[in-house]
Amino acid sequence: VRPFAGIEAHGRVGDQLSGVAWLQAMLDVEAALAQAGEGAGEVPQAAASEIQEACRAGRFDAAALERESARHATPVIGLVAALRGTVSETARPYVHHGATSQDVVDTALMLIARRALAPLLADVSVAADAAARLGAAHRDTPMIARTLLQQALPTTFGLRAAGWLVGLDEARDRLAEIRDDRLAVQIGGPVGARAPAAADHVAASLGLAAPVMPWGAIRVRTVELGAALGVLAGVCAKLARDVTLLAATEVGEVREAHPGGSSAMAHKQNPVAAVSALACAKRTPGLVATLLSAMESEHERAAGAWQSEWGTLIELLGLCGSAVAWTAELLDGLQVDADRMALNLAAASTGEQPVPAGAGELIDRALAAHERGRRA
Amino acid sequence: VRPFAGIEAHGRVGDQLSGVAWLQAMLDVEAALAQAGEGAGEVPQAAASEIQEACRAGRFDAAALERESARHATPVIGLVAALRGTVSETARPYVHHGATSQDVVDTALMLIARRALAPLLADVSVAADAAARLGAAHRDTPMIARTLLQQALPTTFGLRAAGWLVGLDEARDRLAEIRDDRLAVQIGGPVGARAPAAADHVAASLGLAAPVMPWGAIRVRTVELGAALGVLAGVCAKLARDVTLLAATEVGEVREAHPGGSSAMAHKQNPVAAVSALACAKRTPGLVATLLSAMESEHERAAGAWQSEWGTLIELLGLCGSAVAWTAELLDGLQVDADRMALNLAAASTGEQPVPAGAGELIDRALAAHERGRRA
Amino acid sequence: VRPFAGIEAHGRVGDQLSGVAWLQAMLDVEAALAQAGEGAGEVPQAAASEIQEACRAGRFDAAALERESARHATPVIGLVAALRGTVSETARPYVHHGATSQDVVDTALMLIARRALAPLLADVSVAADAAARLGAAHRDTPMIARTLLQQALPTTFGLRAAGWLVGLDEARDRLAEIRDDRLAVQIGGPVGARAPAAADHVAASLGLAAPVMPWGAIRVRTVELGAALGVLAGVCAKLARDVTLLAATEVGEVREAHPGGSSAMAHKQNPVAAVSALACAKRTPGLVATLLSAMESEHERAAGAWQSEWGTLIELLGLCGSAVAWTAELLDGLQVDADRMALNLAAASTGEQPVPAGAGELIDRALAAHERGRRA
Amino acid sequence: VRPFAGIEAHGRVGDQLSGVAWLQAMLDVEAALAQAGEGAGEVPQAAASEIQEACRAGRFDAAALERESARHATPVIGLVAALRGTVSETARPYVHHGATSQDVVDTALMLIARRALAPLLADVSVAADAAARLGAAHRDTPMIARTLLQQALPTTFGLRAAGWLVGLDEARDRLAEIRDDRLAVQIGGPVGARAPAAADHVAASLGLAAPVMPWGAIRVRTVELGAALGVLAGVCAKLARDVTLLAATEVGEVREAHPGGSSAMAHKQNPVAAVSALACAKRTPGLVATLLSAMESEHERAAGAWQSEWGTLIELLGLCGSAVAWTAELLDGLQVDADRMALNLAAASTGEQPVPAGAGELIDRALAAHERGRRA
Repeated sequence: VRPFAGIEAHGRVGDQLSGVAWLQAMLDVEAALAQAGEGAGEVPQAAASEIQEACRAGRFDAAALERESARHATPVIGLVAALRGTVSETARPYVHHGATSQDVVDTALMLIARRALAPLLADVSVAADAAARLGAAHRDTPMIARTLLQQALPTTFGLRAAGWLVGLDEARDRLAEIRDDRLAVQIGGPVGARAPAAADHVAASLGLAAPVMPWGAIRVRTVELGAALGVLAGVCAKLARDVTLLAATEVGEVREAHPGGSSAMAHKQNPVAAVSALACAKRTPGLVATLLSAMESEHERAAGAWQSEWGTLIELLGLCGSAVAWTAELLDGLQVDADRMALNLAAASTGEQPVPAGAGELIDRALAAHERGRRA
Repeated sequence: VRPFAGIEAHGRVGDQLSGVAWLQAMLDVEAALAQAGEGAGEVPQAAASEIQEACRAGRFDAAALERESARHATPVIGLVAALRGTVSETARPYVHHGATSQDVVDTALMLIARRALAPLLADVSVAADAAARLGAAHRDTPMIARTLLQQALPTTFGLRAAGWLVGLDEARDRLAEIRDDRLAVQIGGPVGARAPAAADHVAASLGLAAPVMPWGAIRVRTVELGAALGVLAGVCAKLARDVTLLAATEVGEVREAHPGGSSAMAHKQNPVAAVSALACAKRTPGLVATLLSAMESEHERAAGAWQSEWGTLIELLGLCGSAVAWTAELLDGLQVDADRMALNLAAASTGEQPVPAGAGELIDRALAAHERGRRA
Repeated sequence: VRPFAGIEAHGRVGDQLSGVAWLQAMLDVEAALAQAGEGAGEVPQAAASEIQEACRAGRFDAAALERESARHATPVIGLVAALRGTVSETARPYVHHGATSQDVVDTALMLIARRALAPLLADVSVAADAAARLGAAHRDTPMIARTLLQQALPTTFGLRAAGWLVGLDEARDRLAEIRDDRLAVQIGGPVGARAPAAADHVAASLGLAAPVMPWGAIRVRTVELGAALGVLAGVCAKLARDVTLLAATEVGEVREAHPGGSSAMAHKQNPVAAVSALACAKRTPGLVATLLSAMESEHERAAGAWQSEWGTLIELLGLCGSAVAWTAELLDGLQVDADRMALNLAAASTGEQPVPAGAGELIDRALAAHERGRRA
Repeated sequence: VRPFAGIEAHGRVGDQLSGVAWLQAMLDVEAALAQAGEGAGEVPQAAASEIQEACRAGRFDAAALERESARHATPVIGLVAALRGTVSETARPYVHHGATSQDVVDTALMLIARRALAPLLADVSVAADAAARLGAAHRDTPMIARTLLQQALPTTFGLRAAGWLVGLDEARDRLAEIRDDRLAVQIGGPVGARAPAAADHVAASLGLAAPVMPWGAIRVRTVELGAALGVLAGVCAKLARDVTLLAATEVGEVREAHPGGSSAMAHKQNPVAAVSALACAKRTPGLVATLLSAMESEHERAAGAWQSEWGTLIELLGLCGSAVAWTAELLDGLQVDADRMALNLAAASTGEQPVPAGAGELIDRALAAHERGRRA
């Protein structure tokens, strides 16, 4: 474990991305393939049952599988061999029925993404609800707005929080859409030409979407997921940057609930959650670019590009998940110093001007939209 | 003009991205602001009419405006001053009514994007229709599939084309969604607190969406657009890469309609359209990453990040537009050599195996989905 | 011209990147090829002279060449044809002697880079000298240091400026090294197998380095240049970010010489140079990533990757050049408010502590290193 | 462990990047700080010895330290507390003498980089020596050159290998330069103002370079390292891409020593090493971009950007190390099929033309340069 894992792997998303989680996801695909084969009358019921029973991560030697992955540039060949080794001779021929490595890796990747999105979106909701509370509570708390880091004209802290809320809600809506419509199985057989019935069956049993056709060489889905994660991380970065600036000693308008210390300066009150959210979020744009570049795949299965997606998507899920977990904590406990806001406003050269009349209306719209989204 | 502009600025999208197009888009926003002010009873009808009349790019000195942009880090201050200089003293106070620089730049950017998406999406349709024709025409044209650049098992060229089709359709659907729902005006006044009525009015008059609240500091919309363009460029890259590989001398299964020559080798038949599409598409992932990074903005208006978006988004629209224009030409005239496919298949060690039975069904699904999308 | 070109194309580097500059650079390569051919006794003296005489950008129709570039995915074929059209029948066969398109484009690219580095490095020197002056002048000007945007312990403004100086000097040293050792001709003929004598000759006549062998398919040199530009832009971003923060209203410790105004708020004093430097610099990391990705080239000449470098490198030179021009202006005229620094320090909870004794020594080291570098 | 770790963490570099390696590197810095303090007469000899003795990773609870990192956004505070807990009360005040968190993290990062570069550069040498052998052995093995994936004119396989060699050597030279001159300690104390004697002392004891001044907020060094790793990965990508293309069934001119199998197609001979090298290398450009973006740091210590470097640099070292390990294996065992090259050449429309006379001379230059580099 990296000594700084507490920063980059905060919250619960990481649990869904572990080696064991990967292994289990691949095994879940193998189990679903057997079940689909049974449904199609191609796999005997007993064999299907035996295979499904065997698909438990705990029964496999992860280190051995990892070593095998280096021999074939895929983790599936070793897994299938090991799985065949655990079932009876009768069931053996039905293991990995009609599938190819890519079917298992891609569908497992989508399954992992779906599982990781559960805690991730839950944390987005925590963060958004906190932003909504801040927006409502500070609907009329005046503060000086700042453009290009220069004091501008009065606004309210509620409006700032409402902006955060809209960003979080928009990012969440897109991710929820992707979860429901775009995280699809990829079941195409050796060259992507398998009839769609198997894919439809596996989709139903794994709770994933069924695609028009196999997408092994047309990587729209992974990149859409990656881009939506990148957007969410970008919203977290914006929020966290705002907090570091508002918490700066000279501004002092907000404070984290649990600021951190310094190894050299006992008086420091470091904005740990904001800094950590930024540390995670700043690592995501480059990962999205990697996924976009990997769309350039060769023929029916890419030699390198596809394989570069696996670790990238896992990193992206992990870093975005960590950024969101930090953001949820950050907003949930944010201490707002309305007195300091008032002092700063009074000291501003334009501080005597009224808060624009529209601020409250905008906050109300943002809160109402959030409420509608929650109920949807 | 760059000597290689023919490659990187192919097709009609570039016309929507010129300096004059930018200037006119900003003036269109100023005109809409005057109109909105009139609608709200805040700008006299005569002033509004005069301002709208004055908002024609041809009347302004583009070079002078460009120089002014260096004095203020925004092109709007110079533009507003020049616009005020062209109207009567009575109308002058109503120019740029209630707005700030960012309102004009961001709304102009969305307008430009909407205008650029018209030829861009038309070219996607040309490309997709061509892919559909290839899919239908070659529904039963067998070829050898290749995974990791190794010959694998038989497939059909129609299935390959159907894969391209699905990629193009998915990328187009998302871009169309963004055009309709996410390209929104940004009208917030100095600190983003202007009541939404003005934004709603400007949105209606410019044909853009109206947002929940101003998004000047929450950059979800620009990045969503950028990511969708990146995905489309990625699909073009995949198609073009396939064509370069299938057109490779040793494979020889497709040929471009208008291959290019060499300055040193008269016999060369270079896949000009595919190479050019790749040259453009490969430049987009880094630009999307830039937009994602720019989401980290400070307070009510970013000092640097926001300004980095302008040129980036223009480049992205231009390069994606050029990639799509090349892809449309590429597919529209693609010469498929079914005989060579048959020869290569016969020579393959697995060439005698039958084409998977599912191939035709998958092609039909892709074609049907395309047809549904066209009618929608 | 884009309305915001004043921001993104500041200073003198842009002059070296124009369409005409590109055209002339390619013609300079053609002239050098003729001269090299003459030196090798392969081109008659009269033909060489005639070709060299003809290689003037003003004589060519740039728009026609641009159109031709779309037919061949290279600007060179049209150029060679046009050049042949301007010389006598006797000289015609000696035009483009022994060369291929890539020789001309790559060597022109290096020539353009060398020409662009002259004003660019001059601006770095202006910036560094200004930083050195600030370091010396404020060697003993105390201010509060800030870590994670929290006030920490006392330091001096001189030490901050010395840090900027070291960053600028390091980035300049590497770029100067690249200019001298790594900007090399690429003269390989059709497949990169031309004997090195021609390359050595062209290198000498164009003032570029001579490589061990042609590097048309091994893109270390372009990426090294790109990375060094990216590092320099990153140093500019750090400086400019510091200035935006120190110039923030609540801190107020520095001020730009020529702050900009606002279209909506007359009192604003916007840090125009810092914001513009950031706007440019923030666009460079993605461009460097594009160059790195383009290293993956196919066989003797890449189908897409190579062509994606051209515009990317031009953008990178332009944006880095603009960032440096802004940074030079920023530092050259920076107003330092030592009184405000003293006030902020006095108000800091740790303000009474002494400035660390090492600060002055470190400044002296940085200044001495800068002085040595200037003399070298 | 990820099931595909065999692909992305191949070779010996990963051992230097583990959690334990990080912990030990940080402890090595603490030990060196104590020693430097002793050298300066600021830490009693007994305390220094005791601290040095205590700095062994095995004595610490890694999981506890990881948890602590989440409380402070740095792994150092927990480490210092734990270290203080293991020494006598007398020695306790001298732990972490004069240092700040950043001193320990940054210097540890450089130490890790230095340690990781040992196996990494050794693998580059293995790869380069193999390329040199291929260049020498196939100095006169003719093959058809291919530009834009089209057959062009004859060349030799030796020249192709010589190109690979030059790329590997150039990338290695730059990395060796960085290892020797640019991997420097960062010892600046709380605000980067500590007198340089301590840094000089720590540098000597850890075998790292001593900088002009602390570079905690001027991140040239980490990015230079990252860019050089990116360039090396790019060279690996080029080589590996060539191998996938030359090993394509229709070309068949090279074969890996240990091709991999398929989970669905028993006849497949997949280029496992090349695909794996590409999978790793393709993930590096985005990581370099992240480091470049992180140069924009605030004041004396960045709030987010600095922290984003840690994991990024570790990933970059690991992926580049893995790409190089794969490349070394790839080249070391590459099977060259000169007969197939001759067949392909004979079938080419230009195959009867002679190999350019310069090919041999260029190979000799590349081999001589490699030999010089080996002896240096």
